[in-house]
Amino acid sequence: MFCDVRERGFGDRASMDEVLAWIDRYSRISETECIAVEQATGRFLAESFIAPSDVPRVDTAARDGYAVRSCETVGAGSYNPLPFSLQNPRNALRPFSAALVAAGMPLPLGADTVVPFDSANAEEKFINVILPVAQGEGVNRTGQNVQQEDVLISTSRPLRASDVGLISSFGVTEVWVVRRPRVRIIVAGSKCSVERKAIDANGPMLVPKILRDGGMIEAFTYGMDGVAELAGRISRPGADVVIVCGRTGTGPDDDAPVALATAGNVSIHGIAVHPGGSTGVGFVGQVPVLLLPGDPLECFCAYDLFAGRLIRNLSGRNPALPYKILQAKAGRKFVSSVGTTELCPVRLAGEEAFPLGAAGSADFVSIARADGFILVPETMEGYAPGTPVTVHKYDGFDEAESVL
Amino acid sequence: MFCDVRERGFGDRASMDEVLAWIDRYSRISETECIAVEQATGRFLAESFIAPSDVPRVDTAARDGYAVRSCETVGAGSYNPLPFSLQNPRNALRPFSAALVAAGMPLPLGADTVVPFDSANAEEKFINVILPVAQGEGVNRTGQNVQQEDVLISTSRPLRASDVGLISSFGVTEVWVVRRPRVRIIVAGSKCSVERKAIDANGPMLVPKILRDGGMIEAFTYGMDGVAELAGRISRPGADVVIVCGRTGTGPDDDAPVALATAGNVSIHGIAVHPGGSTGVGFVGQVPVLLLPGDPLECFCAYDLFAGRLIRNLSGRNPALPYKILQAKAGRKFVSSVGTTELCPVRLAGEEAFPLGAAGSADFVSIARADGFILVPETMEGYAPGTPVTVHKYDGFDEAESVL
Repeated sequence: MFCDVRERGFGDRASMDEVLAWIDRYSRISETECIAVEQATGRFLAESFIAPSDVPRVDTAARDGYAVRSCETVGAGSYNPLPFSLQNPRNALRPFSAALVAAGMPLPLGADTVVPFDSANAEEKFINVILPVAQGEGVNRTGQNVQQEDVLISTSRPLRASDVGLISSFGVTEVWVVRRPRVRIIVAGSKCSVERKAIDANGPMLVPKILRDGGMIEAFTYGMDGVAELAGRISRPGADVVIVCGRTGTGPDDDAPVALATAGNVSIHGIAVHPGGSTGVGFVGQVPVLLLPGDPLECFCAYDLFAGRLIRNLSGRNPALPYKILQAKAGRKFVSSVGTTELCPVRLAGEEAFPLGAAGSADFVSIARADGFILVPETMEGYAPGTPVTVHKYDGFDEAESVL
Repeated sequence: MFCDVRERGFGDRASMDEVLAWIDRYSRISETECIAVEQATGRFLAESFIAPSDVPRVDTAARDGYAVRSCETVGAGSYNPLPFSLQNPRNALRPFSAALVAAGMPLPLGADTVVPFDSANAEEKFINVILPVAQGEGVNRTGQNVQQEDVLISTSRPLRASDVGLISSFGVTEVWVVRRPRVRIIVAGSKCSVERKAIDANGPMLVPKILRDGGMIEAFTYGMDGVAELAGRISRPGADVVIVCGRTGTGPDDDAPVALATAGNVSIHGIAVHPGGSTGVGFVGQVPVLLLPGDPLECFCAYDLFAGRLIRNLSGRNPALPYKILQAKAGRKFVSSVGTTELCPVRLAGEEAFPLGAAGSADFVSIARADGFILVPETMEGYAPGTPVTVHKYDGFDEAESVL
């Protein structure tokens, strides 16, 4: 049941857990697509990668040197050099012959070992072996590293650069991966600055976050010209997720929930979380629509907690917050309201975490100054100094680079 | 002094520390460049970002509601509603008047507080205030969050999505950042497969690693047609770093060091590290050139340890290995040779790390199966079971997505 909060205020708010459950229920994995292996780093395989052949496919030199028959080197020594004629490595090995091979080359038929350069003296057309070499030394046997049909890479983690190399090493050039969810961003409510020039922090911030979480940008538009026009932009086909940013509060111009109710359904509007309390979620047809607050701090928090989770789910990723976790102790009192989940930016000093700003007064700048944040659950009034707390740590490696 | 190792073998090898010192000595920060803020996530600022103005610039509504003079609400109650005429929020506030404001809007001149919707009853042209509101409530004061000239973002970490939002919120659209080093990749030595079709694992693997470390691809070419042609490709201007991949060993076709000696200088060839022992480093003019082994496991390790460090330095990043660190215990004996730094892929089970494969026999597939790796320093013969070890952990968030 949609309830218009404009110029009234929120009545009941949904709990954080209710909203997360809604998100997990309505984020089904997207379709799969076939892409070039070289572009697959960071993507998730649609099916496990199975070795298409043994590795190596045939017995192969594991080092540079001379391929020989090991039994023919028995008794070799610096006082008993044994001569081997040099021959072409592509032909089968003749008796008492040696073939110059580089690591990675197939052994000539009949060879079972590789004499390293320091165990032989080379002349023009033959070599003198001065140390015996055991069978199999310097050789990678057929299937030694991988047997055909071995499961090499599972679907449970993003492909690493090394996986891309491994897949390529089999001559495979394309892979099936989970398709990136197509995300539409509509920045509906840029507040005007003193100079009446719209300055938007949210659009530039949301794009790299969406890419980090495995989504791609379907469309990105600014501004709104009334409820009907916004409803039209929300409901146009082509996106897997729609994010509307701004106009979610209780002000007279906070029309985003009304537009979503016009285009489809508002499932939840108003969440017991701070910052981010005016967030809403709903649908148009099968497409989930998220209404994020226009204030940059609120938008930032609501994206990470709700929209990001939806996109991480849809791209096959771990839905958890994509930040490193660190155990610390509250360095000062953390104040929070019972009944509201509070996200508190913190600064770390040694093993202690300090809140930035007074209770509830953190602003967008505090995110830039923060080393990370803690979440105070709705059941708690905050934390006394010395209480163990879990810090989600911001840092440079968490966020993929913008490719727009 | 360049020493040709083809068909002879390496004499002395340089220690890992010598090579790291060489890399740090010759990796100077690149120039800076001016880019659009929206594309700056993950980049490093050339200079700290200084607040160009106060935030907020003027007293601003911190919540939706009615801007009034607080002194005029004294005595208001549900049994003593005080009427205020509604007026345009752009005009200075008249006595006993109220202006509808949304969070983020400048307060009308004269207003010093915002009455929330639940503390007033709205009629058509006026409101009845039913609760007194203290001065400054619901108001963000000029400069409350940021004072002009405050240092907001330092040069010591990559820009986060939130920083991009924060910079944009000041109306700033471009920033000066450290230029990405332009990296030339020359895959000189693809080993031939059984079918004689060149299959390369290294090129597809190196590209996302270089992007992860902040570099960009200047050019990427395959194959080589002799020493002179490779020397020409190495010395062509336009790159900040040249990586040659393959043909670094002791085989008869291992011409990469000879080509570098022809084009410029070989500073080091042969490093006491395993895998990656045939790595070389040198220069052409001012441009550092790295020769990485062609075997994919050796290439992978040599990239991370040496080439990646150079690129991370040049892009302004932390030169350390870009993997999360975890303390574990050796679950089994780790075998290593004194005098050689050994990189051992490991699997984690609880708090224990297990080597993958027997000593020195790890292959490229073990990287796909590994949770991470440990480095056994050259002074150690390995680790007994139960010894504390530091694991560098591979995982999905370590590597940026390929944008090629």
